[in-house]
Amino acid sequence: MSVKRPALIIHEEIVRRNIGRMVKRAQKWNTVFRPHFKTHHSHEIGRWYREAGVTCITVSSVAMAHYFMEDDWNDITIAFPYNPLEWQEVNEIAEKISLNILIESREALDHAKKHLTSQLGYFIEIDTGSNRTGLTINELDLIRELSSATTDILICRGYLSHAGHTYTARSEEQILEIHKQSLTRVLEIRDNVDKNLMISYGDTPSASVADDFSMIEEVRPGNLVYYDLAQAQIGSCRETDIGVALACPVVSLHPQKGKMVVYGGAVHLSKDRIAVNGHTIFGKVVRFYENGWEIIEELVVDRLSQEHGVIEGPAEKIKSFKIGEVIGILPVHSCLTADLMTAQQTLSGKKITKMPKI
Amino acid sequence: MSVKRPALIIHEEIVRRNIGRMVKRAQKWNTVFRPHFKTHHSHEIGRWYREAGVTCITVSSVAMAHYFMEDDWNDITIAFPYNPLEWQEVNEIAEKISLNILIESREALDHAKKHLTSQLGYFIEIDTGSNRTGLTINELDLIRELSSATTDILICRGYLSHAGHTYTARSEEQILEIHKQSLTRVLEIRDNVDKNLMISYGDTPSASVADDFSMIEEVRPGNLVYYDLAQAQIGSCRETDIGVALACPVVSLHPQKGKMVVYGGAVHLSKDRIAVNGHTIFGKVVRFYENGWEIIEELVVDRLSQEHGVIEGPAEKIKSFKIGEVIGILPVHSCLTADLMTAQQTLSGKKITKMPKI
Repeated sequence: MSVKRPALIIHEEIVRRNIGRMVKRAQKWNTVFRPHFKTHHSHEIGRWYREAGVTCITVSSVAMAHYFMEDDWNDITIAFPYNPLEWQEVNEIAEKISLNILIESREALDHAKKHLTSQLGYFIEIDTGSNRTGLTINELDLIRELSSATTDILICRGYLSHAGHTYTARSEEQILEIHKQSLTRVLEIRDNVDKNLMISYGDTPSASVADDFSMIEEVRPGNLVYYDLAQAQIGSCRETDIGVALACPVVSLHPQKGKMVVYGGAVHLSKDRIAVNGHTIFGKVVRFYENGWEIIEELVVDRLSQEHGVIEGPAEKIKSFKIGEVIGILPVHSCLTADLMTAQQTLSGKKITKMPKI
Repeated sequence: MSVKRPALIIHEEIVRRNIGRMVKRAQKWNTVFRPHFKTHHSHEIGRWYREAGVTCITVSSVAMAHYFMEDDWNDITIAFPYNPLEWQEVNEIAEKISLNILIESREALDHAKKHLTSQLGYFIEIDTGSNRTGLTINELDLIRELSSATTDILICRGYLSHAGHTYTARSEEQILEIHKQSLTRVLEIRDNVDKNLMISYGDTPSASVADDFSMIEEVRPGNLVYYDLAQAQIGSCRETDIGVALACPVVSLHPQKGKMVVYGGAVHLSKDRIAVNGHTIFGKVVRFYENGWEIIEELVVDRLSQEHGVIEGPAEKIKSFKIGEVIGILPVHSCLTADLMTAQQTLSGKKITKMPKI
């Protein structure tokens, strides 16, 4: 590991372990594991999944589908509502690989029917309580209409849901409670509409802790590859399962004021935050050693400005650091941190490339 | 303007007006205007400043200094504590142009003395109340020591301060109150240490509304180029001074649920937020017309996930949109939005390039 300025350090051993664990869980359930690649959007990390046996993936944009198609992924679901403005790009991808898109309105389906010319699948998005996109059981007529609209080009595959409301949980028990209710809702819709259609379901909290997904055909968690402090707080993982840390040079030490400042701010970590014992934090601090890192419990990232990370802690602890030393920060939300960071490497210094922003 | 997916739209007329207004204010005070370029980090926008008569700039990283040096800026201050790990890069820039760095500890100054070989200036960072980096009046002995440490290579220029605590203001009066106290603190330090040294001072709120900076030599506001909803809330500008809007395709309409969803999320806007009447929002919605945009007051960006922006408002208003239509979002914090967005263009469709992430 060689760092002069903020860099995302990827703990290959932990990341491969996280991937392997989810692959095994899905095998046990006899359910397809179609991981969401928006967390890492990296060809290299994608190959770690491939080496673990994964053959199909989920992405959150047409551009991301294109990026992974270039690395030979040939079965991709874009788990984001169909954007009519990108119909040409969708066609280009569907000509080459097996592609699925997401539909949740008559208008979008009509547009897709008119403009898409290569065969592809579509899922109907179901809102099981996260209140973002998707249709609910109160819109059963529309779900029926969309479910039976298969043409030669557009094949209805089934129902897709992201139970994002598990993110409000703060324990395994709470995850399981929300999960049970959420899964029941999508199963109820299938039972009422078309029992032959599949269910694609996924969120990292339930996929990490729930016992059984054998009643559905596919799971799509993504964050599990890196996990983060938010997931540890939700109850999806332990802090020792977090696979990335932002390496930051220390640039300012003020032990008497109980703070130190690192080169590493909002443009590296993102402004996502969690409350811990009533204190809002933007990360936890780790000390790197050769094969890993260790949390320094007395320190927290108290605030971020554009390039500055302000870390608070007791004077004695702050005094143990030197200006120019590199410490690590465990991110609150690894998907956003990974999106922000171009400089990425493994602990052993192997460069990890990432999808360029377009 | 041609948009298929999220793009930052720059209102050239407003941006040039914001720049011109600050140039005139600085001329009136007979104070150097050294704008902070971290807000836009774009060669093109930099040239708009140059056309308005600006000749020296501020940046927040060594990499950003390098990027602007490549576009012929030859007088740059890096307003971020000296990072010992980048001494070689600092040397490379100082060999070619007039460069200033920031020092706030004996350790950093000692390192700079040992490793820097081309003449450059340094400022001592003063904390006037923002409690981020910098020294306070309680550390007068250290400030004295650092002030008198000029060598053949490292020339002490004076005191640099960023009054970031004006960001807690919620009116012009509050900005002015904080500003007065903050400015008094740095003037008091100069009076007590070395009256011949200069003061470089800057934050967008005070530079936008305070009457007089003639007692100091240099102002360094940056956000003023674009402004944003946070600055409008602080009292630095009106919402009609905001010079950027994120263009977002509408992908999901749910009038009965009082919401619509756009392609445009945390990876485009950042997770920065403000509270408006007790409601946390991530942006305001605008409708584009040929030469500008207009706020739709009934709508707000209620929450963001990675690529989704969830907009709330009355059913009647939501019904007036179509899937595939492009609406705009005024960002809460334009510096972070501009940092995230590679796709940038003016209203008339002129592409605006930006510093690539390294």
